[in-house]
Amino acid sequence: MQEKLNELKRRLAEISDLHNAAAVLGWDQQTYMPPGGAMARGHQLATLSHIAHEKFIDDTIGCLLEELRDYGRSLPYDSDDASIIRVTKRDYDKARRVPPQLVSEITTATTQAFEVWRKAKEESRFSDFAPHLQRVFDLKKRYAECLGYTDRIYDPLLDDYEPDMKTSQVESIFAYIKKEIVPLVHAISSKLNAVDNSFLYQPFDEQKQWDISIEAARLIGYEFERGRQDRAPHPFTTSFSIDDVRITTRFMHDYFPAGFFATIHETGHALYNQGLRHELERTSLAEGASLGIHESQSRMWENLVGRSRSFWKLFMPRMQAAFPEQFRHVTAEQMYRGVNRVQPSFIRVEADEVTYNLHIMLRFELENALLEGRIHVNDLPEAWNVKMREYLGITPPDDSHGVLQDVHWSHGSFGYFPTYLLGNIFAAQLFDQIKKDIPDIDPCFEKGNFQPLLDWLRTHLHTHGRKFTLDELSKKIAGESLQTRPFITYLKNKYSEIYGL
Amino acid sequence: MQEKLNELKRRLAEISDLHNAAAVLGWDQQTYMPPGGAMARGHQLATLSHIAHEKFIDDTIGCLLEELRDYGRSLPYDSDDASIIRVTKRDYDKARRVPPQLVSEITTATTQAFEVWRKAKEESRFSDFAPHLQRVFDLKKRYAECLGYTDRIYDPLLDDYEPDMKTSQVESIFAYIKKEIVPLVHAISSKLNAVDNSFLYQPFDEQKQWDISIEAARLIGYEFERGRQDRAPHPFTTSFSIDDVRITTRFMHDYFPAGFFATIHETGHALYNQGLRHELERTSLAEGASLGIHESQSRMWENLVGRSRSFWKLFMPRMQAAFPEQFRHVTAEQMYRGVNRVQPSFIRVEADEVTYNLHIMLRFELENALLEGRIHVNDLPEAWNVKMREYLGITPPDDSHGVLQDVHWSHGSFGYFPTYLLGNIFAAQLFDQIKKDIPDIDPCFEKGNFQPLLDWLRTHLHTHGRKFTLDELSKKIAGESLQTRPFITYLKNKYSEIYGL
Repeated sequence: MQEKLNELKRRLAEISDLHNAAAVLGWDQQTYMPPGGAMARGHQLATLSHIAHEKFIDDTIGCLLEELRDYGRSLPYDSDDASIIRVTKRDYDKARRVPPQLVSEITTATTQAFEVWRKAKEESRFSDFAPHLQRVFDLKKRYAECLGYTDRIYDPLLDDYEPDMKTSQVESIFAYIKKEIVPLVHAISSKLNAVDNSFLYQPFDEQKQWDISIEAARLIGYEFERGRQDRAPHPFTTSFSIDDVRITTRFMHDYFPAGFFATIHETGHALYNQGLRHELERTSLAEGASLGIHESQSRMWENLVGRSRSFWKLFMPRMQAAFPEQFRHVTAEQMYRGVNRVQPSFIRVEADEVTYNLHIMLRFELENALLEGRIHVNDLPEAWNVKMREYLGITPPDDSHGVLQDVHWSHGSFGYFPTYLLGNIFAAQLFDQIKKDIPDIDPCFEKGNFQPLLDWLRTHLHTHGRKFTLDELSKKIAGESLQTRPFITYLKNKYSEIYGL
Repeated sequence: MQEKLNELKRRLAEISDLHNAAAVLGWDQQTYMPPGGAMARGHQLATLSHIAHEKFIDDTIGCLLEELRDYGRSLPYDSDDASIIRVTKRDYDKARRVPPQLVSEITTATTQAFEVWRKAKEESRFSDFAPHLQRVFDLKKRYAECLGYTDRIYDPLLDDYEPDMKTSQVESIFAYIKKEIVPLVHAISSKLNAVDNSFLYQPFDEQKQWDISIEAARLIGYEFERGRQDRAPHPFTTSFSIDDVRITTRFMHDYFPAGFFATIHETGHALYNQGLRHELERTSLAEGASLGIHESQSRMWENLVGRSRSFWKLFMPRMQAAFPEQFRHVTAEQMYRGVNRVQPSFIRVEADEVTYNLHIMLRFELENALLEGRIHVNDLPEAWNVKMREYLGITPPDDSHGVLQDVHWSHGSFGYFPTYLLGNIFAAQLFDQIKKDIPDIDPCFEKGNFQPLLDWLRTHLHTHGRKFTLDELSKKIAGESLQTRPFITYLKNKYSEIYGL
């Protein structure tokens, strides 16, 4: 059995190398590649992913997994070997169910759709994008049918990003959130001016923004010997190994939080990847467990740490040293309130911690309505705007501020959006547990000591890689399935206090 | 036949994508990769090259080449298709002759040897490096035996870098050069102080060095839409496609020419790669024809253009604008003489245009003596120093300034060095032809018009990619085989005038 396991691992290591190589190419594409490189880069990425896929769906891997099944079950569930066999089998079964022909049709359709979307968004013309979205949508529907489902057609799509999570679970979570958040947003909306953040809108030298963002990332534990930050049009985190985890960011000249919190957010993702156990390197476990769990890490560091009162008690003097002109007369408490200002707005990625959730819910509901035939692609702009009015009380001035704003659908990423909200929820649940285990966590932050939090996350979460699902992790860590209550309580407490509700 | 040819091209395109992906990973390794990334990068590069090799030596490719042989011969020799079939067959036959086991032994041995060499060089201890060099040398000897030869064992090694070139040809070329250059060096050595270059040794702001190097690269034709410059410990050029050709450089704080001419040199390489015909993309022809021919391009732009009197007539005002303090009182003529100062020195990569050739000759002679058993690895330091005294009249103070200075042997690159000198020779021969075809080339340079030169090189050389060998190109362009005379004449004329010999 050991021999078969080694053969499986050898093959997985090769496939992992191919994925990591593709990640390097993707990183370069977003950071340094000159415009001329685009077409060849497309070929190179297609070839790498084609070879990796071919090698993964090889019959030999199926046979090895079959032969190793009982052996895997005889080992402790959470052991490396049992988990490698179990998780690889899950991936393999999914990969085998989709015909290669469909995979390449999706690749072709989304490559085109992405280009059309980019232009359509610029010109705010949904009608240009609609036929391409329809095509991508039809293909992804076929893809979902190939994977199969017993309850909802959204299930297999969601499963790609959040394994084992079901649409009905998300719906009941979201129903609860909606019931609690919509009134909170309405209450805050009547007191918008209770919080001033005008001092955040000033000119900020870009090099200084860069320096202070690096300082913050290093402070909370990002190891630059095993990572780096570069500039990119859209911030992201990518890994080429556990010891080479990179983030990107971009700065706005006249609004400080955009770049600063992007760096902290991406650092949260990066800390997760840097915290994986080295024994998992080059296996199918050497990644975060799911997109939702990944987002719980980025959101925790961005919001529960980076937008906390304790953080600004610590960090405000550094900020004043970097930007004396801009912040000389701003107190830590003013900064804390300023970076937490709530304001219903059109664009998801610019939304505050409270309204953000409603942006996600809207997308989740529209995706389901589309998939279940309750609306059609052409109805999307209107359906979008109706929901914006209902949840946030505002109407987008045009489709580029509405239905065209996100890249996800052009990529065929239906089922992706809920993971952002699941991340918020899981982060709050984790943080409740962390406060029980480390009661003096806030004083730690005030002293600039983030190590206890990072150690806790490494021990309880990061170390496991992809071994467990969200439900398994939640039970393991908190003794129960995913709970929405801690997130609602966190939001209500924080924002009632800030807005004096 | 068209179908078989398409199948061959499809496979070559995939292999080319893998090589280009590996090139991206190699570039990142030298430019931006954090230290932690090194081990995983080794795995990724090994996997990519292993898969590319496996796909290339596949029997199917052999069969396709066999079936296409007569078809290829029925087409014009210089047509794309005939050349793809012919050159791929040449590569394939070589690749099949070497057992995969030997390839991976060489990879392992050179990886170790490189690490040991780096340390041994720092500490100037040849004895640490000797056993590793011996191992690499033994393996490369076996490699040469696998490839086979009729005359000299050096032939198959040389052939890897300069296809079809023979050791005996190089020897007779080098004998002629030695006869002419050694006396020239001795004559100059007695008048070293005739040229002053002390003004080149001053502090130069690095950002300004960067800016002026970019300005020079753009001026001579490097397209930054299809390329870019980054910093790296050792300057190099790399391509990921014809439309993504990148250079790297490094600057010395207190010696201007190091960075400036490194950029021009690498730009010369890059102009070659940017000038390949797009029809050759993703075939085995989408590269420079050989290392020697590549070097002819870098050397031509660096020395025949960048160190010409016309260039400095044009460029001196820009240089004075960039560095007014340093160059206010330096004339274009002084600059021309300064950047052409000859001085016997220990380090090849810092050598001037005249003595450089002797550094190469020394290495070529030692490599042959080793391979033919006339000396042993342990004799190398002493043999090196004896030749340095003979050719340049100086003795290295230690082995890091002598036998340990170059990385090549630790990589197993025996047979590589002569291509540097072949490049110098071919550059001069080409330039003679260019002056016949474009009589007013010098006035063009003085006006900042490098387009006629670049156009000529593109038409006669760059466009062909790997279609032709050095001998074929030389006959095609100049009507005869490689000639050494133009190079000797060029050196004698230029340096007799500068030194008043």
